[in-house]
Amino acid sequence: MTEGMWRYADRLPAVAPKSIVSLGEGGTPVLDLTEALGRRLGVASVVAKAEDRNPTGSFKARIASVAYSLVNERGLAGTVGTSSGNGGAAAAAYAAAAGSRAILFTLTDTAPVKLREILVMGATVHRVAGVGHDAASTRAVADTIAEQAEQRGFAPMLTAFHYAPEAMQGVSTIAFELAEQAPELTALYLPVGGGGLLTGVHRGYRDLGRVPRLVGVQPSGSAALRRALDGFPGGIAGTVQTTVSGLQMAALYDTDGAVGAVRESGGHAVEIGDEEIWQAQEELARCGLLVEPAGATALAGLFADARAGRLRRDDHVAIVLTGAGYKDRDALRRMAPADDTPVISSGDVPARLDALLGRTR
Amino acid sequence: MTEGMWRYADRLPAVAPKSIVSLGEGGTPVLDLTEALGRRLGVASVVAKAEDRNPTGSFKARIASVAYSLVNERGLAGTVGTSSGNGGAAAAAYAAAAGSRAILFTLTDTAPVKLREILVMGATVHRVAGVGHDAASTRAVADTIAEQAEQRGFAPMLTAFHYAPEAMQGVSTIAFELAEQAPELTALYLPVGGGGLLTGVHRGYRDLGRVPRLVGVQPSGSAALRRALDGFPGGIAGTVQTTVSGLQMAALYDTDGAVGAVRESGGHAVEIGDEEIWQAQEELARCGLLVEPAGATALAGLFADARAGRLRRDDHVAIVLTGAGYKDRDALRRMAPADDTPVISSGDVPARLDALLGRTR
Repeated sequence: MTEGMWRYADRLPAVAPKSIVSLGEGGTPVLDLTEALGRRLGVASVVAKAEDRNPTGSFKARIASVAYSLVNERGLAGTVGTSSGNGGAAAAAYAAAAGSRAILFTLTDTAPVKLREILVMGATVHRVAGVGHDAASTRAVADTIAEQAEQRGFAPMLTAFHYAPEAMQGVSTIAFELAEQAPELTALYLPVGGGGLLTGVHRGYRDLGRVPRLVGVQPSGSAALRRALDGFPGGIAGTVQTTVSGLQMAALYDTDGAVGAVRESGGHAVEIGDEEIWQAQEELARCGLLVEPAGATALAGLFADARAGRLRRDDHVAIVLTGAGYKDRDALRRMAPADDTPVISSGDVPARLDALLGRTR
Repeated sequence: MTEGMWRYADRLPAVAPKSIVSLGEGGTPVLDLTEALGRRLGVASVVAKAEDRNPTGSFKARIASVAYSLVNERGLAGTVGTSSGNGGAAAAAYAAAAGSRAILFTLTDTAPVKLREILVMGATVHRVAGVGHDAASTRAVADTIAEQAEQRGFAPMLTAFHYAPEAMQGVSTIAFELAEQAPELTALYLPVGGGGLLTGVHRGYRDLGRVPRLVGVQPSGSAALRRALDGFPGGIAGTVQTTVSGLQMAALYDTDGAVGAVRESGGHAVEIGDEEIWQAQEELARCGLLVEPAGATALAGLFADARAGRLRRDDHVAIVLTGAGYKDRDALRRMAPADDTPVISSGDVPARLDALLGRTR
């Protein structure tokens, strides 16, 4: 296995080569957006780590690949986890690839395409009221699942170091790859849900000995990282207000990891409104990159920091695009509200070309 | 540019490095399905080339990347093309990345998500009655577009060597990659729409000097390759009957290339019903690979050949998974017709786990 994430097998939990469950995760490209964004932002360079190119369209594939490799290695019965959609899709896909089981407790408002994707690949799904939306339900369900999974011979597929410290090491491979693809990086912007991505990328860079500033970006309506940095590790007060699927997390699962990542790297947290996230999503689409709102959140944070004067002229910045844009139908509709595409006959084509291109003959 | 498709820049049309428009296309993984499918098929090995991992979810990204690199290199105004969805999405994305234009004439029944994806990324779209569905309209519109694009300083974004011989060289990189990733291959199964994929892969392998048997698979309702091999190069009689988006092509654009690919490689054509294609799509989902029906067509052809006794015990077979499964909502609904996912409260989770996993404590 010389391609993709398992190139770093020596830094991942030990599994025999025959236990590895791979669908081609990792090895995602780094795209140069300096021309499109760099000058406007006043920094030396901007690149994007396109995690949407992973199997099932998100970085969660890296976690599921390790999780099911461990299931194989240890003869476990499968995984049990929570998901807002992308983690569940990854669990379902790797369970299918491993010939194993995925049992999922999802948010009640999981995007329809994500839910169907999970079902098509054969996972068992329950939707749980409150999960993701209020801190008490979110933590209670995760605690229950992690505890009972272990008791019953299942691995937890909770994408947090707090619950699944081994599988989550898959996330650190993002840092290993970035360090090779963009060694000059000074700042890295990441969306934050439960804090696992931030924690895993920090651990990966720390292992390599050189950490860029890590900036965690959250929707204002679920800004648990801000609360934790301000000394309130219990999550946000009240219920989550953001509509950004994947970042609806009333509480950080990885509080210590996320806070440590920001503090030790000299980074900070950015809170951002949903509308600014949608604008960043449109901006990326105009660069040819169709990601879901959560996948555009890091860019929204970068724009906000540019406005606030928090960037340096010699900064080399990366954003992590965490998930693909196809699955969120509502977001596509918002960006292209009117489908007024005309239907014409084949004989009309030359006249339409005249109108569009001008008569130059 | 040392990763992905442009690793083979010396075998692609000459463009200056600064002209290259890349969104991280190519370098797609080869996945081993031998355990899941090999024994059942009675062959030595089965692998899948996961072209769904390309930007915009299909191999068409390889073509669009070359097309817009040439647009840049030559100072052209953009591209004009036809599309059933994936080619258009690729054109729209690379036009956006290049800061250029994409003008598209699509099929009337383009999948809604594909159409919206194209619009979101800023392309101009007209839907044209008949295109894809009857041979006369399909060819007439393509001829008009190719001719007028050239006259007006646009490049053709028709995914066929007949119309866009330079951009189509991007397809040959699939063969370059496969020859490195699976050098032992004896047979390669590919879906056929207009014949460009088959032609490009054949040319790529021919350049390398060793060609596996190339097997072109088409839905019975648009079996233009079969007709061409039987001496009728003009396309199918009547209108296309298949519902498989992307393979609704009443006529091969690349008749000579596709026929030559099959004949010179010792391959053949397979016709397959839509329902068998849907079954192959479900089979892939049960391996953790969610592709669109067109993306599963090669596997359906492989199953048919296994039943017909056309495979050898020492065959090393590859299938090309051409496109991602997220965009075709109807196909997802067909595979998971009932969404009876229960909604429960967080307090119900332990009891549900008991019911699902058994009480083992």
